[in-house]
Formats: sequence, structure tokens, C-alpha cells
Amino acid sequence: MQSPPLSCDRVFLSTVPSNEQSLAQALQQRRQRLAEQMDAPVLLWSGRSSARNFPANTYPFRASSHFLYFAGLPLDNVVIRLEAGRMELFMDDPTPSDRLWHGASFTRDRVAEQIGAAAAYPLYRLKSFAEGVATIPVQDAATRLQQSQLLNRMITPANALQGMDQELARAIVSLRLTHDAAAIGEMRQAAAVTVAAHRAGMQATRTAKTEAQIRAAMESVILSHNMTPAYSSIVTVHGEVLHNDRYHNPLQSGDLLLADVGAETELGWAADVTRTWPVSGQFSSTQRQIYEIVLAAHDVCIEKARSGVEYYDLHQMAATVMAAGLVDVGILRGRAEELVEQDAHTLFFPHGIGHLLGLDVHDMEDLGDLAGYEPGRHRSDRFGWCYLRLHRPLRPGMVVTIEPGFYQVPAILEDPDRRETYRDWVNWERLAEFADVRGIRIEDDVLITEAEPEVLTAALPTHPEAIEAWVSEI
Amino acid sequence: MQSPPLSCDRVFLSTVPSNEQSLAQALQQRRQRLAEQMDAPVLLWSGRSSARNFPANTYPFRASSHFLYFAGLPLDNVVIRLEAGRMELFMDDPTPSDRLWHGASFTRDRVAEQIGAAAAYPLYRLKSFAEGVATIPVQDAATRLQQSQLLNRMITPANALQGMDQELARAIVSLRLTHDAAAIGEMRQAAAVTVAAHRAGMQATRTAKTEAQIRAAMESVILSHNMTPAYSSIVTVHGEVLHNDRYHNPLQSGDLLLADVGAETELGWAADVTRTWPVSGQFSSTQRQIYEIVLAAHDVCIEKARSGVEYYDLHQMAATVMAAGLVDVGILRGRAEELVEQDAHTLFFPHGIGHLLGLDVHDMEDLGDLAGYEPGRHRSDRFGWCYLRLHRPLRPGMVVTIEPGFYQVPAILEDPDRRETYRDWVNWERLAEFADVRGIRIEDDVLITEAEPEVLTAALPTHPEAIEAWVSEI
Repeated sequence: MQSPPLSCDRVFLSTVPSNEQSLAQALQQRRQRLAEQMDAPVLLWSGRSSARNFPANTYPFRASSHFLYFAGLPLDNVVIRLEAGRMELFMDDPTPSDRLWHGASFTRDRVAEQIGAAAAYPLYRLKSFAEGVATIPVQDAATRLQQSQLLNRMITPANALQGMDQELARAIVSLRLTHDAAAIGEMRQAAAVTVAAHRAGMQATRTAKTEAQIRAAMESVILSHNMTPAYSSIVTVHGEVLHNDRYHNPLQSGDLLLADVGAETELGWAADVTRTWPVSGQFSSTQRQIYEIVLAAHDVCIEKARSGVEYYDLHQMAATVMAAGLVDVGILRGRAEELVEQDAHTLFFPHGIGHLLGLDVHDMEDLGDLAGYEPGRHRSDRFGWCYLRLHRPLRPGMVVTIEPGFYQVPAILEDPDRRETYRDWVNWERLAEFADVRGIRIEDDVLITEAEPEVLTAALPTHPEAIEAWVSEI
Repeated sequence: MQSPPLSCDRVFLSTVPSNEQSLAQALQQRRQRLAEQMDAPVLLWSGRSSARNFPANTYPFRASSHFLYFAGLPLDNVVIRLEAGRMELFMDDPTPSDRLWHGASFTRDRVAEQIGAAAAYPLYRLKSFAEGVATIPVQDAATRLQQSQLLNRMITPANALQGMDQELARAIVSLRLTHDAAAIGEMRQAAAVTVAAHRAGMQATRTAKTEAQIRAAMESVILSHNMTPAYSSIVTVHGEVLHNDRYHNPLQSGDLLLADVGAETELGWAADVTRTWPVSGQFSSTQRQIYEIVLAAHDVCIEKARSGVEYYDLHQMAATVMAAGLVDVGILRGRAEELVEQDAHTLFFPHGIGHLLGLDVHDMEDLGDLAGYEPGRHRSDRFGWCYLRLHRPLRPGMVVTIEPGFYQVPAILEDPDRRETYRDWVNWERLAEFADVRGIRIEDDVLITEAEPEVLTAALPTHPEAIEAWVSEI
């Protein structure tokens, strides 16, 4: 490995995004819209690489999403200042050492031109532009310290902003909640590559022996398009472990494989998709019965998702459909609505129906619930409901995930208190017959419109016969 | 994407490494050897995940290498205390939320048993065990802050340790400089998977259209073995950009492709390999001439690498062989030794011949030059020589890389001062005939013994005919 003697402090853009023209326009419009809501000047930092095991061996750099939203390009160690729709760029020109190790690279002036900055300065000039500015803290601690020093005040955590920083966060949320055409274009690309990755995963199942091999086949598609995984992929035959990213299990023919894998474009826009398929290429009868229930919940949510609908109601609808289905197959007893009132569905569907999607896979989650929850609304205290990440009416231009699931989580189903509470609501003997259904989730990315929602990931089948065909066909 | 409501704070080991028995013994021996050099008690933190774009979306966790060396397993948010060969473990048992999101996971007691800890405590007990301990700062800032708070003193940067922390670093360096059988076993696995990755990269070249596709093919092999890239892969047709990790260039038939890609095992041990191959499957005459020169430098270094030999002398030997070769083809003029005295080789070979390899791809580089440079030795001020990362006599059990290269770096060759200095030493017209040789590097991982060195990556060919055959064969 050859690597620079000093840490690399920018990504060098020697290619221009194919949609530079429209990107530049979109960026300018976003800055203009911010100016309509924000009088104070704003500084946004892109952040810097984080060290992995030593300073020169860094994790792949990811620029702050708030920076990306207004500046467009994944530039390392760059700051922008926004005021009244005007943008100023602060970055250092490449040093001779940079040119040696990183080759010919963009100069400050070229970057300024590309992203539409009205003026450009070296970083040391930042101090004289920092008076009275609002900001959002970035994720890396070294840059956060710089932010605090430059502004000469404590930077509160991003999920608990105060004063003008909170005002800025609210303004950014109001912009980023719905997506413009440039953003949707990027998300369509991420969705298309993600669909191809899932297809590759299904095809790889014919010969793969381990979860790791399926993961490799899927991420390989993402990397081959010069995208990155938007989050740590979940690829597992133990879908009941909700955050399972170890890939160490062998595949066995009776297993279901759950793959939650999404691509992120070079400019930072995410997709987020889950499919669950049978390792053998054929669902068992029990697997298929539960799969159909999860799919019914998925389908009804997408059907109902449109402008004005409360996302919370979609969650409740999914819970009700799941409860009704579980009554039908004899696992639950009672009326679906009553079961949901009793939270009985959370025994099998403990998480939320989905979340916002955009530059972040849980969009703007760095700001806590400021984006996800309409002002005045707060997380429920009830198990299951408390994990709902979005509680707003849907609006055209929002992109949300719809991702119902069924899991047999030992920590839930073997909990003595729950077994007592739901003693009469669950037919435990009947449930035991579904032991080969450990975890199923079906997740798509849905663009809200005034009318029918558009499923960005619709090219990937959800129906069990189609899934079986994709896994089995050569 | 489903992810935990709180950040994940450990990796759950539901499988036991296949060599657990010998690993436990090796860990115990390492701790015993540390005790022979260190009277003071030692606390070593594993560190915690770093946030990518929001707190719940983290980079893949990488435990501190110093922690891994003594504790063996990649445990998140765990601390060990070492004193007189005895190890105590500090970690929290999984919470109910952990069990919900992460499934059945190892308890503190089970981990203690697995890594051979004599006692185990929850993290809150750490305070009462922190008196008079030495430590090494980890890479993530949040944990560094915890270290400082717990020890109630400023933690100096790892590359500038003082007092007992420096004493600890020196003791750890003396251990980690040479590898035990368990370490070498891990590095053999990393090397084998890396060889397979390079083979896949060569094969993918037949159909690939972009650098990104080659990178995907190579990293896919690493992921499919449930390993990770040990560093940001370099896969490029512009090998003259030494730190090129953007993968955006198309492949053209006259190009050479340079791939610097290495795997890291689950327990953290690295490989680091570079090969350069023709996209077309055939080196041009000019490419082959230069390739043979780099290969001659590579081969002579490996031939001479053995116990007692100064690594610096290998670097000089490589420079001399390269200079002689460049004289032979008419690019340089003069005697090889004199050219090296004049640093003329640095026009084309600006970096060092290699570095230590172990748990880190540049092993122990977090400690600055403490590991790489024998006490009393310091980096040269001379261009080229100043990038040499290792300046010690070789000893049995060391693993080093040997990685000579030839590059036409515009920042070097177009520099007016250098063109003046080397006006008579370089035949610039002749050099222009080699325009299709932008960058070549050949890198292997070499285990030093008393006699012949063992090339851990020897299964991957270096000779141009063999490379051509691997790229071309179906």
C-alpha cells in the first residue's frame, strides 16, 4: 500500500457529474429557498475523513449531508457560507505534496465554478466570515472541534440544537423533506443499482454456501457502478436478528435469506431495499403463508401512500393487516383492531413501518426527530410504536420506505411477562409450526405524489412466485 | 434499513474462531511477554464505532490493533487491564434492547472465558482499576475522551507519547515487530484471499469497462471470505497518481492497470499486494521493458531480505537496480550508484521500498516512527528517502512489504527545478517514448527468517508472461 505521508484532505473530482448543468441549477434553487427562511448567514462544513486503525488509513470519506444538499459534491475539508442565496467557498488549493500523491486535482477556483460559488477563499480566511453565523455540527469530532473554535461557542449535539442553529436545522428540514428533480434523479439511479444488486444476490444463492458470498455478490454490483453501500448491509438467514451484519452463517436449504442492502450514489443519495427469499428457490408452505401476510401489509401501505395521508396511519394499517393475517393462519386470536390496540402485533412486528429517505438512509436522523416528527409530536412510550421514525402527513416529493416485517425474536417471544400478557391472544402451539419463519421483511422506496405513489424500486419483484423465479432461473 | 435505536456498542461473536485454542495460548504468551517489559498496569481500549452520516449509521467497526494483539477478538466498547501477565475484562452485558436488535449474544463471562481473562467486570467498575495505568490512545475521538477522563490526565497523541505511555508503546513495539505463529497463520489467510482477489481482478479485465468493475471483482472475493479490505483499494489505469481511489476511469486497451488491494481477516491481520497488468492482456514493448526493471528491483530485495540485513539497504539496492535498468533502456545517463547519490531515481521511484505489515497495513504507524525507525534513527530530509517507513535491521518473524515502483508523476517530471537539476542525467526525448508507462508497482508480503525469506503472497505471479497468461486465459 502506498498512501500519502499526510492525511488526504479532499476528494479530487477529475470528472464532472453528467448532470452538472441541472445540478448547478438545483443547488442554486436550494440555496435560494434557504435564504427565504433564514436571515442569518450559514456556515456548513463538509467534514473530514475519520481514522480507522491509524491516521493515514481512513474510512472512505462521506461528506456531511447538509453540506452535500447545498454544495453538491463530496469535497473533503471544505466549508461553504450561505447568505441571501449567495454562496462562498472556503477550501485550500492542493499543495505540492497533494499533487505528488493525488495527481492533478481541482483547484479552488475550478470547484467554485462547478458548484456555483460567487467567491472563493482559502480556509484561513474563514475566521473573518464567522460572525453571527448558524451551523449544523458534523459527525466527525475533529471538525466539530474546529466548528466550535471558529464560532467561539459550544456546538450542541445535532439532535439537540438551540437558538439560531435550531432555526437553521428547521429551515433545512423544511427543504429536505421533499425532493427536487435533481435529487429524485439521483435516487432513481441508486434504486436501479440496488435492484440489480438484489437480483445478483438472488442469482448467487444458487451456488453460494454462506451469507458472506451473497453479500459479496450484492455489494459487488454496487461497487461496480462506483457507488457505495448506503449502510451496513444486512444479509442473513437469521432475519430475526434485526441488526445482523456479520455474514458468518452457512446457507441451508430450508432457510429464508433476508437481504437489506442499498446503494448510495457518488453524490450521496441513498436507496434502501429489503427482500427475503428462500435459499432453495422454493418457499415452504409456512414461509409462504407468512410472506403473503407481510406482502399484504406492504401492498396496502403503498396503495394508500399519498399526499395528505398520515404516515402513522400507514404504520397502524400495516399492523392491522398483519394482525388479521396472523389470525387467519391461527397464530393470533381475536379481532385485528383489538389485537393492535393491545400491541399484540409488536410480538412479531416490533419496528416502525419505515422512514424518510434522501441523502441519508434515515434522512436527517442526525437532527434527532426534528425531521421525522411534525412539530408538537413526540415518540410514543409504547413498545413497537416507539421505534416509528416518521410521524408526519405525507407530501408530494417525499420519499419514504415501506418495510413491514415478521420476526420470531427470542428476546420478545421468550419474555415471561409478554408470554403472560398475551397468553390468550397467541396460539403458541400453532406458532411452533412456523419455526422455519425466523424473519421476513419486504422494503421498497416510495415517492409520494398527489395521486398514485411511485415505487422507485418497483423493478424488483415482491410476489413470491416472481421471487422464486428470480432465485431459480438461470 | 432497520437499525438499532441506540448505537450498536459491540460486535457479537456467535462463532468461535477455528483456531481458538491456539489463539488463546498465543494471547496468553503475548501478555506474559508484555509483563516481562512492563511493571505498570496497562489499560487498552478497543474503541467504538465512528458515525458516518448520522449516529446510527456507523462505519464498520475496527478495534484498536493494540487491543486486538492482546485480546484477540474485535469487540466494540471493551477494555482490558493487563498486569503481570493477568488480564481483566471490562464490558457490559447485553441490554434487553441489545438482545432485541442484535439477537442472542455473548455475555461478559463467555467473552472472558474465550479470551482468557482472569476476571470480568462491567464498564462502570473501570474507575477503581485506573490508578497508575499506562495506555495507548485509540483512533476514535469519543473513546479518547473517555480515556482521558478515566485516567484524569491529558492523553497525548499516539505519535508523541510520553512517560509511562511511551514506555508501554516501546514494549508493545518490541513484541509486535516480530510475529508469533498465530499471527503468521492469520496473515497467511489474508495473503491467500488477497491472491485470489488479484486473480479475480485479472480475470475480470477481459470484460470490464471501468476501474470500478475491476475493483468490485477484487473486493467481492475479499467480502465473500468474510474479510474486509485492509485499506482503501487502489485500482487504476493512472498508477502515477499514487493515492488514487476513485475508480472512475474507463479501461482502454493500451492501458496498464495498477491494483493495490489487500484483505484483512476478521481478527484484524492484513495483507498488502500490488500487481500491474496490461488491460489488453499484452504488455507493449515499452511497458514490458519498464516492468522488467521494477521486477528486477523487487526480486533483488526479496532475495537479499533476511535476518540482519538493513531494510534501508534494500531500499538503496532497489533504487540502484532501477537506476541501472533505466540507464540500460536509455532514460537515465550515468552510473547507477552516482544517479542514486544524486537522487535521480526519485524522479520515477519517489516512495519507500515498503513497510512493516501486521495488524495494521502500515504496522503500528499510529505510533509515528516508533515502530518503523530503530531508536536514534530519524527520517531523512531528502526527497524520496523521507518517505521510507522502515529503517531497522530485519529480524526473523518480521513481515515487510517489498514494493518498488516506476511512475511518471507530472508534479515531479514537470517541475522546472527538477528538470534543470537533472537536465543532463535524463534523456527526456527517450523518456517520451515511454508515454504508455504511467505507473507500475509490484508488491509482495515477505516473512523474514534466518535463511531464505518466505513470500506469503508467492502464489500470485510476478513475471510478465505469467501475468499475461492470467489476464488472458479463460
